[in-house]
Amino acid sequence: MTGPLAGLRVLDFTWFLSGPYATMILADLGADVVKVEAPGRGDPSRKAGPFIGELSAYFLSINRGKRSLELDLKSEAGQYTTLELAGQADVLVENFVPGTMAGWGLDYDTLAAHNPRLIYAACSGFGQTGPRAEQLAFDAIIQALAGTMSITGQPDGEPVRVGYSVGDLAAGLFLSIGVLAALESRHRTGRGQYLELGMLDAQLALLENAFSRYFATGQVPGPLGSRHPLIAPFQAFPTKDGHVVVAAGTEAQWGRLCQVIDRADLAADERFATNSARRENLPSLVEELTGGFRRESTATWVALLNAGEIPCAPIQTIAESAVDPQVIARNMIVEVDDPQAGPQRVVNTPLRFSDTPAAVTRSAPGLGEHSTDILQEWLGR
Amino acid sequence: MTGPLAGLRVLDFTWFLSGPYATMILADLGADVVKVEAPGRGDPSRKAGPFIGELSAYFLSINRGKRSLELDLKSEAGQYTTLELAGQADVLVENFVPGTMAGWGLDYDTLAAHNPRLIYAACSGFGQTGPRAEQLAFDAIIQALAGTMSITGQPDGEPVRVGYSVGDLAAGLFLSIGVLAALESRHRTGRGQYLELGMLDAQLALLENAFSRYFATGQVPGPLGSRHPLIAPFQAFPTKDGHVVVAAGTEAQWGRLCQVIDRADLAADERFATNSARRENLPSLVEELTGGFRRESTATWVALLNAGEIPCAPIQTIAESAVDPQVIARNMIVEVDDPQAGPQRVVNTPLRFSDTPAAVTRSAPGLGEHSTDILQEWLGR
Repeated sequence: MTGPLAGLRVLDFTWFLSGPYATMILADLGADVVKVEAPGRGDPSRKAGPFIGELSAYFLSINRGKRSLELDLKSEAGQYTTLELAGQADVLVENFVPGTMAGWGLDYDTLAAHNPRLIYAACSGFGQTGPRAEQLAFDAIIQALAGTMSITGQPDGEPVRVGYSVGDLAAGLFLSIGVLAALESRHRTGRGQYLELGMLDAQLALLENAFSRYFATGQVPGPLGSRHPLIAPFQAFPTKDGHVVVAAGTEAQWGRLCQVIDRADLAADERFATNSARRENLPSLVEELTGGFRRESTATWVALLNAGEIPCAPIQTIAESAVDPQVIARNMIVEVDDPQAGPQRVVNTPLRFSDTPAAVTRSAPGLGEHSTDILQEWLGR
Repeated sequence: MTGPLAGLRVLDFTWFLSGPYATMILADLGADVVKVEAPGRGDPSRKAGPFIGELSAYFLSINRGKRSLELDLKSEAGQYTTLELAGQADVLVENFVPGTMAGWGLDYDTLAAHNPRLIYAACSGFGQTGPRAEQLAFDAIIQALAGTMSITGQPDGEPVRVGYSVGDLAAGLFLSIGVLAALESRHRTGRGQYLELGMLDAQLALLENAFSRYFATGQVPGPLGSRHPLIAPFQAFPTKDGHVVVAAGTEAQWGRLCQVIDRADLAADERFATNSARRENLPSLVEELTGGFRRESTATWVALLNAGEIPCAPIQTIAESAVDPQVIARNMIVEVDDPQAGPQRVVNTPLRFSDTPAAVTRSAPGLGEHSTDILQEWLGR
């Protein structure tokens, strides 16, 4: 391990997505992440498809780089071992329904009495307090309640969920930020602490601009399809064979865009003379431009727009993104060798450090694969 | 300042969104974030609407808690002052096009020679390397290239952009993670380091599940509207006056759902007997359920479904989310007092620390508001 967190011990009681995503980030950064799993069963996401042989692709992707320890938290022996492990850990992460760890006698106060340097990080759907604290949360529920779905989709269209589980992922990202900030604080105070967040709260943090527009104007933001709320033209247009996103953010880019699509008349048209004029006459603008873009393929337009220095992009599928020259040059898809399933591709960490490189170091663990090693290394058994 | 990063000095050269979002997180955590801005102009997002009087709501939301220093980076004097400031800083963050800081003689190597403990964090659209490194990136371009837009929206519908700038925000989140991890590493090595990431790379990190499904099956993920890819029924349904998201993840929940909507016949229907049967017969399932849900209001269904312990949620607007009892109980909307514009509401940090509370401490700075203070405190001038 050479990452910036090399040597850091993380005791990981997380399951499914928000928590495991946070500890995946810590593992990529070099921490020794010990995933504590129920005997014989483990993280229920081990059963989430699709599968590669017996291996859940879902589980692999977010549990690479971790080690697995089977431990029955419902037994006194398991609880005692947890207490011992927490004594050796820098960080404990869990994303149970509030009260679960306390029900096993493993609340923060008990663990902190044993190890005052422990950082205890909890994530749940709605946080540890408030009227919804005990409610079950799934990503779709968080996206619905927070307002994310209300601003994503076509105007007057059917509801759209962000295509990945951004409710969980945002919480996981903030959870790892909280852990790292508490580590920095520990260097000053000598003490660990308790930190917690809810998926709903984390989602609101991503919605900051929508809330700030609402607070400033009283107007409730709605869905805009692919459009930018303030700039035009700045959206997707259909081409002969797909779609191209065009982002003409300046007057100069707008002028060049009109030349590239061979419609100098539009640049001279009063209805489109300024950004605010273009926004006021957006339906006409979109109609005129759509007529132009439909004439050629996406690849042709991307080449022409790039030559004209007008920011643009094809709407790529996951398959196209996976082989994008930039994605390849940045080594963003890496292979891990799974003992059972063989070489598997996962998305790499985006962080590039000069001195302590972060990396995906190994496949996701088999259930209890490292039980013996961990008990020996951490507890000398 | 009482946050976990109290006392940490961050020299902030960021503008618009990805970088400022990262340094907003650091400021909320208690760091002293000094935003370096061009004289007379400042961060161009100061000109982004909507406005409250002269104050950009956009700028306020992501620059609260920071201080502003006017400095001309194009002048030798400004470059020299930057070198001096970097000598006093723990962290430097920038999100210029690659090469910009180097063009001013302020590259990492120069600054590190002056202050080997400095952590230099760079964010750009595509990272510092690769064929796209110099290309301009906007959020919509990142969402298009990464594959996000290809999996968000209605099947066969027009392209949809995630309603907030998740391309920027994901990069900002990872950037703050990188800074904090490098701080932890510095405690071990005594050295700072250089770290960088691209918005495209960060976006791929959020798409991990879509990529892993694609790699496992060879099937290219597409948009699913509001649907869960693997579970049914797990999506939005239209009601008499809006939409309700229903997430029946278990067979027991499916059974109770049929009772709640008074359609015990569906529970007994072979076409819907298991999750995989329900997925195979999804169009019929959705038709049957839609007929049921259209009969009552969203509020009625939420009450009935909650009583039946079936996870559900109304699709809330931003206005509804802002007054959600949980959002209020968690204090997720806070007021900052702006000297010019008066009390303003912004979204709070989602992180709750027991020992070193994170907080939004003040409004966004006026351009150069703290120039004198900062030069005096940091450089003794």
